[in-house]
Amino acid sequence: MSKKIKRIGVMTSGGDAPGMNAAIRSVARTCAFHNIECVGIYRGYEGMIEGDFTELTARNVKGIINKGGTILKSARSKEFRTADGRKKAYATLTANGIDGLVTIGGDGTFNGALIFNKEYGFPVMGIPGTIDNDIFGTSHTLGYDTALNTVVDCIDKIRDTASSHNRLFFVEVMGRDAGHIALNVGIGAGAEEILIPEEDLGLDRLLESLRRSKKSGKSSSIVVVAEGDKIGKTVFELKDYVEENMTEYEVRVSVLGHMQRGGPPSCFDRVLASRMGVKAVESLMEGQSNFMVGLVSDKIELTPLENAVKGKSEINKELIRVSDIMTT
Amino acid sequence: MSKKIKRIGVMTSGGDAPGMNAAIRSVARTCAFHNIECVGIYRGYEGMIEGDFTELTARNVKGIINKGGTILKSARSKEFRTADGRKKAYATLTANGIDGLVTIGGDGTFNGALIFNKEYGFPVMGIPGTIDNDIFGTSHTLGYDTALNTVVDCIDKIRDTASSHNRLFFVEVMGRDAGHIALNVGIGAGAEEILIPEEDLGLDRLLESLRRSKKSGKSSSIVVVAEGDKIGKTVFELKDYVEENMTEYEVRVSVLGHMQRGGPPSCFDRVLASRMGVKAVESLMEGQSNFMVGLVSDKIELTPLENAVKGKSEINKELIRVSDIMTT
Amino acid sequence: MSKKIKRIGVMTSGGDAPGMNAAIRSVARTCAFHNIECVGIYRGYEGMIEGDFTELTARNVKGIINKGGTILKSARSKEFRTADGRKKAYATLTANGIDGLVTIGGDGTFNGALIFNKEYGFPVMGIPGTIDNDIFGTSHTLGYDTALNTVVDCIDKIRDTASSHNRLFFVEVMGRDAGHIALNVGIGAGAEEILIPEEDLGLDRLLESLRRSKKSGKSSSIVVVAEGDKIGKTVFELKDYVEENMTEYEVRVSVLGHMQRGGPPSCFDRVLASRMGVKAVESLMEGQSNFMVGLVSDKIELTPLENAVKGKSEINKELIRVSDIMTT
Amino acid sequence: MSKKIKRIGVMTSGGDAPGMNAAIRSVARTCAFHNIECVGIYRGYEGMIEGDFTELTARNVKGIINKGGTILKSARSKEFRTADGRKKAYATLTANGIDGLVTIGGDGTFNGALIFNKEYGFPVMGIPGTIDNDIFGTSHTLGYDTALNTVVDCIDKIRDTASSHNRLFFVEVMGRDAGHIALNVGIGAGAEEILIPEEDLGLDRLLESLRRSKKSGKSSSIVVVAEGDKIGKTVFELKDYVEENMTEYEVRVSVLGHMQRGGPPSCFDRVLASRMGVKAVESLMEGQSNFMVGLVSDKIELTPLENAVKGKSEINKELIRVSDIMTT
Repeated sequence: MSKKIKRIGVMTSGGDAPGMNAAIRSVARTCAFHNIECVGIYRGYEGMIEGDFTELTARNVKGIINKGGTILKSARSKEFRTADGRKKAYATLTANGIDGLVTIGGDGTFNGALIFNKEYGFPVMGIPGTIDNDIFGTSHTLGYDTALNTVVDCIDKIRDTASSHNRLFFVEVMGRDAGHIALNVGIGAGAEEILIPEEDLGLDRLLESLRRSKKSGKSSSIVVVAEGDKIGKTVFELKDYVEENMTEYEVRVSVLGHMQRGGPPSCFDRVLASRMGVKAVESLMEGQSNFMVGLVSDKIELTPLENAVKGKSEINKELIRVSDIMTT
Repeated sequence: MSKKIKRIGVMTSGGDAPGMNAAIRSVARTCAFHNIECVGIYRGYEGMIEGDFTELTARNVKGIINKGGTILKSARSKEFRTADGRKKAYATLTANGIDGLVTIGGDGTFNGALIFNKEYGFPVMGIPGTIDNDIFGTSHTLGYDTALNTVVDCIDKIRDTASSHNRLFFVEVMGRDAGHIALNVGIGAGAEEILIPEEDLGLDRLLESLRRSKKSGKSSSIVVVAEGDKIGKTVFELKDYVEENMTEYEVRVSVLGHMQRGGPPSCFDRVLASRMGVKAVESLMEGQSNFMVGLVSDKIELTPLENAVKGKSEINKELIRVSDIMTT
Repeated sequence: MSKKIKRIGVMTSGGDAPGMNAAIRSVARTCAFHNIECVGIYRGYEGMIEGDFTELTARNVKGIINKGGTILKSARSKEFRTADGRKKAYATLTANGIDGLVTIGGDGTFNGALIFNKEYGFPVMGIPGTIDNDIFGTSHTLGYDTALNTVVDCIDKIRDTASSHNRLFFVEVMGRDAGHIALNVGIGAGAEEILIPEEDLGLDRLLESLRRSKKSGKSSSIVVVAEGDKIGKTVFELKDYVEENMTEYEVRVSVLGHMQRGGPPSCFDRVLASRMGVKAVESLMEGQSNFMVGLVSDKIELTPLENAVKGKSEINKELIRVSDIMTT
Repeated sequence: MSKKIKRIGVMTSGGDAPGMNAAIRSVARTCAFHNIECVGIYRGYEGMIEGDFTELTARNVKGIINKGGTILKSARSKEFRTADGRKKAYATLTANGIDGLVTIGGDGTFNGALIFNKEYGFPVMGIPGTIDNDIFGTSHTLGYDTALNTVVDCIDKIRDTASSHNRLFFVEVMGRDAGHIALNVGIGAGAEEILIPEEDLGLDRLLESLRRSKKSGKSSSIVVVAEGDKIGKTVFELKDYVEENMTEYEVRVSVLGHMQRGGPPSCFDRVLASRMGVKAVESLMEGQSNFMVGLVSDKIELTPLENAVKGKSEINKELIRVSDIMTT
């Protein structure tokens, strides 16, 4: 039988994402609600090893629900990948009376938590925080919905120039392994073509599609390209290829970059973060461990961390079809 | 067996909502994709009676996916509520060769469609478009997600003043019959209390809650009130009551009003509208009628229009609990 | 000759405005640049009397340049209006070694500073912070540019609904004594009529103008009304009057309210605040007192506080003419 | 004595900028106000040669004041640079009864207008439209204020990640020849260093400054780099140099790109565009030619087009000093 949890540590790790602060706030307030202590761990596993901690109360997490980034900062820790590093981390946690851990992050974060639990039996719960939405076991990761709005807003702006000048734009968006962002913003921004890692469109089909667009009367075009797209090595090579083969187009490239990660979270992400924080803390209190809190069919549910890490977040095939129809 | 659909009419009716234009575009493009003609009907049932129509092609719906409001305009039609009005509408539709109808709107819109179908057997499909999210058979109506972001952004701004002056704000948000907006933005904006039509908090509990807030060290507070809340007759009466009973607070009221309905749709609403438009047209093509297209557990599904109209879109009880914990 | 200033106090007073935090940061950093100490005074004159202070260093004002409201909070102080209150304030300031004061606010704030200087010879400099832009001696007050953008964005949203429903909207914006906001957002949002305190349009001319609009083919209209407009007692009475006299219009009212005061400051306001903070501190260092820092013909200049308080910020007549032409 | 103007052509040329549509609307409405006809010329000088025209009335420019880009589209015309091209343009204009021209654009646009006027005595007026603010004779070009807000908003988002990860970001912003954008957004976003074409900071001073930042306790830094900065050939080379010489920093680059040009214009740009359009049309009516309408000390004034083209828009030295103090 599990001991009663008295003091929960919460940390963020990996790339930051909007909604992380809302999740930290939720963890802290849920702890306060249940009269459990809450400790913020700075800089992910790095701070866990070093004991870089701060007490989190219901009051000192106020005013962060609408802030991007993470007040606990994030870092990648080489030391935690070593057995020695994890030993230190365990010593630091126990020395500080922490008996449960909520980790907010992605695959790497959860892998660390799993090994740590395996070695020391330390109760861990994961909350998926990454704009890429590439985690199995949740329809939405924290930050994903916000990023979609940020990117669509950027492409709306680029569209102003594309339309004014009859140009073709390649817009690179985040998503090294997953095309979720590209596919959704492509539909949302009315892109003429969408290139994602999951599908190999092929250069010829791209050219053919652009020629069809031109013929159908479109004078400007926007092609959304996920970072991890398989066609070209880079979006700049794509541009060169198209310019060589379609001299009728003046081509421009825009790499949206890090700005996609920031900004105040959307209402959806704030509510999701609040729900996930409650579930993570209460699951630890019930003696659960090694689960990720996720959104499944609009409900908050638990998925074994192992599945979250191994599983693949599949692209929605229906959306590919919708995209094809929309670019008629 | 159903005849092959050749010419689909699309209209918006009732209050406008962000995403309606994206849905119109999707209907038009899906028709074009399937070589079906598409006719835009202006001003809802009013324009249907009068024959106020416009051809919609794949090209002339471009540039509207990111626009709030509805290019087809909306109106309430008294005449369509009479048998005579509907008779005229049927005559106009058939005279124009229209053999299927997609109506975008809410309860009233769907009721009209149902009666019309009952009387004339005219194939109709509904798409839920209203910011209130008060329709059964879909987790999200078009415009709801956008409105949540608009409102949360407004309350973030009001919070700046509330915090700077240690004030208590009552913020009235839309939702005459449903507290979906109030409950979600209340959590998202970190409100201290949320008043919704579905729950009768009672004035005493409100005062008690505000007193507890004050005691716990909160110097400013925001109370989100749904239009249809049951406690006070108006948000201004609420203010007076609290000022009389809690002289320690300087109270302000903000009624957000119509601005909540407008603005560019969020990425979510644009994608949802695109998906719904495809489904509506293809369902008509398959010979279906009297259904509403909805989002159920992240999937596009059909619900009988009758259920959509009669059913109740229940508030998520989990969210009420999350809200209670967050305001610790 | 003036003594060398060693320790400057900075405070915000009156209604909060975006850019106040950027000004506080600028004052703190300019002090640090010149090796002067900087003290933040909470809650305006109230905190000055009570000694509610905090040290401000170059580092602890980081991350506030883009935040609305004021981290030093604001309050109205009845006690400071009494000779006794000011005596206490002087005692507290000198006991804390503060020998110069930067006050950020409006008329009331500056009046307090003037009296305080008159009685105790305490060096004071003012920075105009109010969204209303109703201060003489500066073309722009802090927060005014931000408020214009916030309001124009709101009216753009309301326009979506107005156009979709062919409605007439009265939108009330801030400006009790000055029509700067109403006049500029009216032009910026393409309003059909603008009612400001400085001009008495008269109800008859308003009706006539609306009738002309309707005739010229406009199906929807937006009338921007400054709080302090002279025609109607309230915007709701205006609505009633128009509805009685122009039954062809369905009229709606939207009072934008406090949200106009908040939000991240525009780039203009952040830069202006930074410039004003530098000038305020360096002027105190040069032995100046009783001036307000203002923007005059794009240059930072000093105006005697007395003039700032007594003078009137005139409406730009050219804009009224531009507005008349634009509503053709 | 000049003939009475009866029919004015308006066009946009060069890079698009927010506010161009507001200026087109203003030109059209001012013409309508004075009972002059107004013709929109598509694709700049290209469309002028080809006669690609559209009638602009007070009503058909509605709903564009808040749209980025230009409804008249823009293009660069090689043909207009030839005497033959200009001959054709003159023939087309006169054949269409156009007797005055308002050109909205930058240097290149104005040069074309000057030569055209010299050769054919055709009355021309210029309106400065470019986000770079690099035109002499106006404190603000159309689109500049909007771009500042767009860029500051982007850097705020990047700051979220920079702070969360203790990173150094180089953010490249537009401004090939002028550092106006970089300098203002650098101050507005609280950048630690700003690199502009007008000043050669030198690589050593940059390193020194970054080292000082690090020492002073800053854990993250943002360096704003204007496209046309003189230090490095590209922002990527800068990154490499700093990473080699300051291994304590993890450096990231973000090139904001074309998104800076788009989006709804700020209230300032909408009002400025409205004022400039009025002045441009009324100046033509008064028989003026070869002037640019500009904002000088907050007033709308005329500057000879020749001066606008030859003069240099100087950087405000006060801002450089403010920037130095703010990065203390």
